Amino acid sequence: MEKSGRKTLVLSSSDIEEIVNDIGIDEVMDTLIDRMTLAFIKYDPAQTIIPIRSGFNYIEPNTGLIEWMPLFNKKENQVVMKMVGYHPDNPADFKLPTIVSTISSYDTRTGHLVGLMDGVFLTALRTGAASAMASRILGHPESAVLGLIGCGAQSITQLHAISRLFDLKKVLFYDNDPATSDSFIERAAMLNLKTEFIPMSIDLLVEQSDIITTATSLGVGEGPLFSNLNTKKHLHINAVGSDFPGKTELPIDLLKDSCVVPDFKEQAIKEGECQQMDLADIGPEFFECIQNKEKYQALKNQRTVFDSTGLPLEDQVVMDLFLEYAEQLGLGYSMSIEKLSKDAKSPYDFMYLNKAESIKKELPIDSITPAERQAKVRINK
Amino acid sequence: MEKSGRKTLVLSSSDIEEIVNDIGIDEVMDTLIDRMTLAFIKYDPAQTIIPIRSGFNYIEPNTGLIEWMPLFNKKENQVVMKMVGYHPDNPADFKLPTIVSTISSYDTRTGHLVGLMDGVFLTALRTGAASAMASRILGHPESAVLGLIGCGAQSITQLHAISRLFDLKKVLFYDNDPATSDSFIERAAMLNLKTEFIPMSIDLLVEQSDIITTATSLGVGEGPLFSNLNTKKHLHINAVGSDFPGKTELPIDLLKDSCVVPDFKEQAIKEGECQQMDLADIGPEFFECIQNKEKYQALKNQRTVFDSTGLPLEDQVVMDLFLEYAEQLGLGYSMSIEKLSKDAKSPYDFMYLNKAESIKKELPIDSITPAERQAKVRINK
Repeated sequence: MEKSGRKTLVLSSSDIEEIVNDIGIDEVMDTLIDRMTLAFIKYDPAQTIIPIRSGFNYIEPNTGLIEWMPLFNKKENQVVMKMVGYHPDNPADFKLPTIVSTISSYDTRTGHLVGLMDGVFLTALRTGAASAMASRILGHPESAVLGLIGCGAQSITQLHAISRLFDLKKVLFYDNDPATSDSFIERAAMLNLKTEFIPMSIDLLVEQSDIITTATSLGVGEGPLFSNLNTKKHLHINAVGSDFPGKTELPIDLLKDSCVVPDFKEQAIKEGECQQMDLADIGPEFFECIQNKEKYQALKNQRTVFDSTGLPLEDQVVMDLFLEYAEQLGLGYSMSIEKLSKDAKSPYDFMYLNKAESIKKELPIDSITPAERQAKVRINK
Repeated sequence: MEKSGRKTLVLSSSDIEEIVNDIGIDEVMDTLIDRMTLAFIKYDPAQTIIPIRSGFNYIEPNTGLIEWMPLFNKKENQVVMKMVGYHPDNPADFKLPTIVSTISSYDTRTGHLVGLMDGVFLTALRTGAASAMASRILGHPESAVLGLIGCGAQSITQLHAISRLFDLKKVLFYDNDPATSDSFIERAAMLNLKTEFIPMSIDLLVEQSDIITTATSLGVGEGPLFSNLNTKKHLHINAVGSDFPGKTELPIDLLKDSCVVPDFKEQAIKEGECQQMDLADIGPEFFECIQNKEKYQALKNQRTVFDSTGLPLEDQVVMDLFLEYAEQLGLGYSMSIEKLSKDAKSPYDFMYLNKAESIKKELPIDSITPAERQAKVRINK
C-alpha cells in the first residue's frame, strides 16, 4: 500500500508573514523567480493542463466576480485551484483589497486536499516574479531605468522583483492619484534600494524607461494610459493591469510596433492587451521564448510587451514554495478535514466505534412516528 | 462601512463528528431533510446559478477525476464550491474512500472565503436526505418496504434518511459482494430501527419493494442491475449510483415505463440514468414536482425514478447547516487565511509596521549585484 497523506496543511496569514520574516523577502523573491523560470522552461502544455478560467460575475450587491483558475500537472500528480474574488468596491466599502483569494492543492492519486493558503499576497509576489522573469528574457540586459505606471500594491512587488535582476539607477513613477504617488517612496523605502526615485509625467516616463510595468486601476474602456510612442527602441513593458474584458492600458500603435508576448494567449485575447490585436499580430507565448532563447535572442533589442494576465502555473510555483517553507519551518495547521470512516462502508461508524455509551443518547426511542414527522416538517409552509 | 468577516471557519473531521454527537444524528438528518425540502421549494434557477460540473479526468497513475461543482446563490450573496475526487482504486491502494471531497463557501460581497469543511460525510448525508425528500414527493405515502441494491457507505445514509419519513416494516437488501452483504445488518444496527432486515435476490427485492435505492459500484457499461419489470405499480426508485458517463444501473424498459425525475437534467443526461433516454421521455426536474405538488400528485401512485446525480444546491444546504451548528457549538478553527495588508497599497507592510527592528535582518546589504544574481539563478541548467 502506497503512502498518501490524509492531513491538510492550512497556512494562516500570520504563517505567511512568519515565513517571509524567517526566510527574508529577498531570498523568497529570488527563489520564486528561480523556481518560476525553471517551471516555464519545463512547461509542456500536454503535461500541464490549464483550462481558461471561468466564474460568476454580477453587479448586485456590488460589481464583482468570483472565478476559479484550475491547473492539472500530470507529472506531479497535482491539481491546483486558485479562487479569486475581484470586487472594486472592497477598499471603500469594506477596507478590503480588490482581490481576495486563496489557493489550494490536491493530490490526483487520491483526490486529497493537500494544502490551502492565501492567494492575495502570493499573487502579488508571483506577478512580480513573472515580470522579473519576463524582463530578463525580453528586456535589454543593461536596463537601468524602471518606469512604474500605477503605484498601488502591485508596484511594490513589481519593483522588488525587477530590482533583484537589474541594477536599477532610476525608478520613474506615476500615479493619477496624488496620494498614491506621494506615498510611493515611503512604501518602497523598506526595499533599501540604492536607486533614485523620480515622480514623472507619463509621457516623460515612457520616453526615458528601459523597462515599464503598467498596473493601474483604469476602468473598462478608459485606456490607453498614454499615446506617446517615442520610446527607447529596446523598451520592454510588463502589461500587468489589463486583466478584465474591456480593460486595456497600452496604445494600439505601440502594441503593433512591439513583439507582444502573452503569458497565456487564450486568456490574453479575452482579458489582456491582446484584446486589441489581430490574432496574427500576437507574438509567441512566453514559454516558447524561454524554451527557445536563441531564436528569440533579438527581442532583447526590440520593443516587447509581456501581456501578463496570470497563468495558474505561477500559482502552482508560489504555492509549492510556501508549502515547502512551511514544512521546513514547522508552520501551518496540519488538520484532518475530509471525514474518512475507519470502515469505508460505515459513514456513521464514529458514533459507535469509540462511543458505545453514547448511542442511547444519540438515538433515543422516538416518541413520534415517521408519518407524524412528515407532517411536522415544513413542506407546507 | 458594512461589516464583513475576514476570518475563515475551517471544520476538522473531528468537529463534524462532535457536531453529530452533540446534536444527534436523527436530529441532524431531520433538520437536513427539512432544510433541503425548503431549499427546493424556494429554488429559482434564475437566482441560483448552477453550471454543470467540470474537471480533470485521467488514467495515470490511477483512474480518477477531480471535479468542481460551483453554485452561485444571488439572494444569499454566496458562492459554494465543492471539490470532488473520484478514485475507484482508493480503498485498495490507500485505504481511502472512493470519493474524497471538501466544500467551501464564499461571500460574493467581497470574495472572502467564509468556510471550509469535509465533503465526504456531508455528501453521504445530503444524498440520503435528497432521496428521502424525493421519496416523500414521488413515492407512495404508505411505503413500508425499502429495497437497497448495493450495501456500501451510501446505503446506510439512504436507509437512515428514508426511515425518518417512512414507517418501514421491511428492509430488503442485496449486494453482489457477500462480505458487504453480510456486514450490512451489523453496520445498520446503530440506527435502532424496529424493522425486519432480509437479504434477498435482486429479482425478488425488485418485486416486493415500495421504494428502492440503487447505489452500487457497477462499472461503466456493466448495467443494468436487473431486468425484472414485475414491480409494484407505485414503485419509487432513488437512482443514486449512476453518476458517471457510461455508468447506469436501471433497465431501459423500466425507465420508459416510469416517470423519470432528474435532480439536475443537464447533468443527468450526461452522467445519470437519463443517459439512456430520449430527451422527450424525461420527466420534469425535481424542483418542478415539489413546487407544483398538486399537478404531480398522481405520481405517488405511479412508477417513478429520482435520477440523483447530485445538485450543488444540496451541498449548499448541508454546508450552511454544519456552519450553523459549528457556530452554535463553538466548534471549528476561525482563521485569517487571506493575507490582507493594513495598508492595501503595501503588501510588504507587515515587515516594517510591527517589526522595525527586523528590517536589517530581512534586507541585508547585498554582497552580489543583480547582474551576478541573474548569472546565479538556474536558467541555464
